[in-house]
Amino acid sequence: MTAGAPPLHSEEAEPEATMTRREPNPIRSDIAWSTRDRITVRGRDLPGQILGHMNLGDFAFLQLTGREATPQQSAVFNAMVITLVEHGMTPSAIAARMTYAGAPEALQAAVAAGLCGLGSVFVGSMEDAARLLSEALPPGQDHSGADLQAIARDKVAAYRQAGRILPGIGHPIHKPVDPRAPRLFEIAAENGMAGPYVALMQAIAAEAERVYGRSLPVNATGAIGAICCEFGFPWRIVRGFGVMARAIGLVGHLLEEGERPMAREIWLRVEDEASAHLRPE
Amino acid sequence: MTAGAPPLHSEEAEPEATMTRREPNPIRSDIAWSTRDRITVRGRDLPGQILGHMNLGDFAFLQLTGREATPQQSAVFNAMVITLVEHGMTPSAIAARMTYAGAPEALQAAVAAGLCGLGSVFVGSMEDAARLLSEALPPGQDHSGADLQAIARDKVAAYRQAGRILPGIGHPIHKPVDPRAPRLFEIAAENGMAGPYVALMQAIAAEAERVYGRSLPVNATGAIGAICCEFGFPWRIVRGFGVMARAIGLVGHLLEEGERPMAREIWLRVEDEASAHLRPE
Amino acid sequence: MTAGAPPLHSEEAEPEATMTRREPNPIRSDIAWSTRDRITVRGRDLPGQILGHMNLGDFAFLQLTGREATPQQSAVFNAMVITLVEHGMTPSAIAARMTYAGAPEALQAAVAAGLCGLGSVFVGSMEDAARLLSEALPPGQDHSGADLQAIARDKVAAYRQAGRILPGIGHPIHKPVDPRAPRLFEIAAENGMAGPYVALMQAIAAEAERVYGRSLPVNATGAIGAICCEFGFPWRIVRGFGVMARAIGLVGHLLEEGERPMAREIWLRVEDEASAHLRPE
Amino acid sequence: MTAGAPPLHSEEAEPEATMTRREPNPIRSDIAWSTRDRITVRGRDLPGQILGHMNLGDFAFLQLTGREATPQQSAVFNAMVITLVEHGMTPSAIAARMTYAGAPEALQAAVAAGLCGLGSVFVGSMEDAARLLSEALPPGQDHSGADLQAIARDKVAAYRQAGRILPGIGHPIHKPVDPRAPRLFEIAAENGMAGPYVALMQAIAAEAERVYGRSLPVNATGAIGAICCEFGFPWRIVRGFGVMARAIGLVGHLLEEGERPMAREIWLRVEDEASAHLRPE
Repeated sequence: MTAGAPPLHSEEAEPEATMTRREPNPIRSDIAWSTRDRITVRGRDLPGQILGHMNLGDFAFLQLTGREATPQQSAVFNAMVITLVEHGMTPSAIAARMTYAGAPEALQAAVAAGLCGLGSVFVGSMEDAARLLSEALPPGQDHSGADLQAIARDKVAAYRQAGRILPGIGHPIHKPVDPRAPRLFEIAAENGMAGPYVALMQAIAAEAERVYGRSLPVNATGAIGAICCEFGFPWRIVRGFGVMARAIGLVGHLLEEGERPMAREIWLRVEDEASAHLRPE
Repeated sequence: MTAGAPPLHSEEAEPEATMTRREPNPIRSDIAWSTRDRITVRGRDLPGQILGHMNLGDFAFLQLTGREATPQQSAVFNAMVITLVEHGMTPSAIAARMTYAGAPEALQAAVAAGLCGLGSVFVGSMEDAARLLSEALPPGQDHSGADLQAIARDKVAAYRQAGRILPGIGHPIHKPVDPRAPRLFEIAAENGMAGPYVALMQAIAAEAERVYGRSLPVNATGAIGAICCEFGFPWRIVRGFGVMARAIGLVGHLLEEGERPMAREIWLRVEDEASAHLRPE
Repeated sequence: MTAGAPPLHSEEAEPEATMTRREPNPIRSDIAWSTRDRITVRGRDLPGQILGHMNLGDFAFLQLTGREATPQQSAVFNAMVITLVEHGMTPSAIAARMTYAGAPEALQAAVAAGLCGLGSVFVGSMEDAARLLSEALPPGQDHSGADLQAIARDKVAAYRQAGRILPGIGHPIHKPVDPRAPRLFEIAAENGMAGPYVALMQAIAAEAERVYGRSLPVNATGAIGAICCEFGFPWRIVRGFGVMARAIGLVGHLLEEGERPMAREIWLRVEDEASAHLRPE
Repeated sequence: MTAGAPPLHSEEAEPEATMTRREPNPIRSDIAWSTRDRITVRGRDLPGQILGHMNLGDFAFLQLTGREATPQQSAVFNAMVITLVEHGMTPSAIAARMTYAGAPEALQAAVAAGLCGLGSVFVGSMEDAARLLSEALPPGQDHSGADLQAIARDKVAAYRQAGRILPGIGHPIHKPVDPRAPRLFEIAAENGMAGPYVALMQAIAAEAERVYGRSLPVNATGAIGAICCEFGFPWRIVRGFGVMARAIGLVGHLLEEGERPMAREIWLRVEDEASAHLRPE
């Protein structure tokens, strides 16, 4: 409110430019450029150095980080993103299908509708896990001497005291073990990427099992959160992985909806039931 | 994580229904119903009791609350929502226009794109003001004996100590006074709706001016936050008023974009400037 | 591809600006402006001339047309837009509720998701009716001598021959008559706005009934399409009325979803049933 | 309107279920299922058969088609989708960045806003090319004896007569040749996928050059449209490839926006210029 107001701080933050002459600031992006005969993304010639040389996952890594994935990074990154593509008939998939039923000429809007719900409830757990881990072991520092057991004890105790849900562990369905988590950790280990964040995530699960007295293994969101930290990705980007992966999954759902629709049937059932108590005999 | 998991708690929260027989819960809505010859919204016959008898603002009030607005409520509610319709060439309007340029056949998607950005930065201040006020004076209680000056002192001190921005006061452009705020308070007063929340908002502004030593009058978001509390609306709904109002404003922008486009020009300028540093001579 | 390429003509239409020096074109909007002490929308002072003087429907008319509604226009416009606000548990409402379940912190995104489906299937009929009528009786001309019966005969025959659905007539539920249509026509007539477009819509319905041998009265979309033409609105804007009205309705649904959720139950039922045929015993 | 009404045919298509008892139809999806200890997508065990064994492009192919890509299909599909990921500072990227500036806490909504504009203008050319080709050479038939020159002559003449833009050829920037097209065709040829659709697209470009008397080589959208037809994908899905690819690109733009923002600067410039003609001295 006072000095140092953030760039866009309220509905009311109409630009001061409307008042006084303002010096324009530069607009700059480092992602891509093109000329009459060249198209370049992240410094690589698209036709010559990328097409035919990379798979989609590796190109996503390049687009997001500006770096080419090593073979090890490629293996782990592809596995991690693939895990996020498809989760069955989620609320997100249902929203996309309902939207497609109303506007089949605008498939992009149906995918957009499906993505809009990837918020705190659905990708939050993954984001929260990455955040917890990266706050415990700040990126860019040496954590070889960290006492992971002690950190795990502190974190579990703090979450318990605050009545907060510990992200990344336990699962309502996949019991005793979410089979994706050990597989992702296995792939990480095979590629030399099972470091302190993976170890801390596992230590937290073990400590939570001890404290709560029941099976609470690391689930897929915990595994992905930990692996993101191993890559050095900031926790805020984790949601982006879910969003880009799910876009692929939603296109698959819309293709199926076009061939074997369910949206109208869901609509009819819901409409019929929801207001039955209001309609006169 | 433990007992009492929230309804949808993570990406991983696939329904337990996939495991065991589940008793279905009822699906119920009280908003509207129709039969062969009747269409009813919020218990009123749409053709007979609503069309021709209400204006759009009053019908919005009915749709949202289930109650008909009194003449006083109608005057204040219409003024409040109208204030939120149009704010010039906002990021939201630019996003809608850019989207329309790519998909002019899907106007609904362009409005949707414009709405997607009405988040913490743009409607947050209004939401935060309503939240601050309703937490200070919990709804449904008698606040006639409340010491508003003391509450204002506490709140300003608490926000200052936490380094947080006080919502609803000050303005980067409209100085010394955002002209909407006194007008909204005037309309509220004329209609008997300038109660304890309006008074508290003003007390907070006065206290902030005293503490920070500069002019910090209530702005439009503060006025709207206070008036929402006078209505008894929960603070979570305040964002919804902004969203529904802005949808009207965005349709106006898209109409203008169809007749006098600016999206392509913005695009060309940004594209040209953003990657100029990368392109070879 | 050849001379006269449209402004944005393909995925590939990167701006020629990347190639040669380009003279910038002006960016201009006539909707609103503000200064230190004034906020003006469509040439009216917002605090002084609009707040407290207009209802939301009249302000929407001003925002969209740049003109103030006459009392007659106000009556008809408010009724028309109100008709579009709420239609019960539509696919659009279900999409919004599913989205809200995943991202309750982003109510704006849930409304956006609901709007994304207002496409050819749902608002198409209204848009098509307005288009049919405005092509038959071009706006801005004198239609007092038009032979509406002959036009109706031609249109019904042409649609029948092409196997196309005539927009604006008949209704799967509301039989024999959609009660909104006669009421909207009544309000139009009371306000001197039941002109040639309303008459042509009715003539088309009568001719269709004669040709198809069954009851096919004008429905609400036909009535709204005709009234839009009476206002002189271009048919492309008709969808915008539906979008802005439905935004209000969707906020109502999300409020209810927050208090009495149904999204999770719909999800559980769909998830359980959809893949039951795949799951092993 | 008459017999055989489409499933959802108008705003007014409230379900007949509100009237009479209706037999529910089944809801069915073949994409994925899970149980306590298994997660299966398209018939493959996700942890055991997919993670660590596929790259993201190949998994997208599986998700969309239900089939595993051959090595040849993998090479061509990955190249095709990668081509669509990133196009610099497009209107779509600007819309996403403007949205992110208003709601940084809802990254998914910013991606959704960016996707909403992938409509007729931006992905239309690719979709149109695939449609033109698949209508000329219906999928599932033997086209070995087709006279591609004659088809090209007919198509070019027909588009010219109708004043329509031929999709997939020419380019406003990349002259004389869009470098992506020959590279994609090269990759297709190397993998045995340069069949009749690729040949027809090239014949159309040659014929158009002859008729219009200037250089009009196949561009990237033409190459992608042709390759989609070689895969046997229906033309309606082509837009989906663009949408899922661009979701990846948009996440990259939002990451950059978070680190080096441009949205506020674009906003300030546009706001300042757009209403300058209205503001008093």
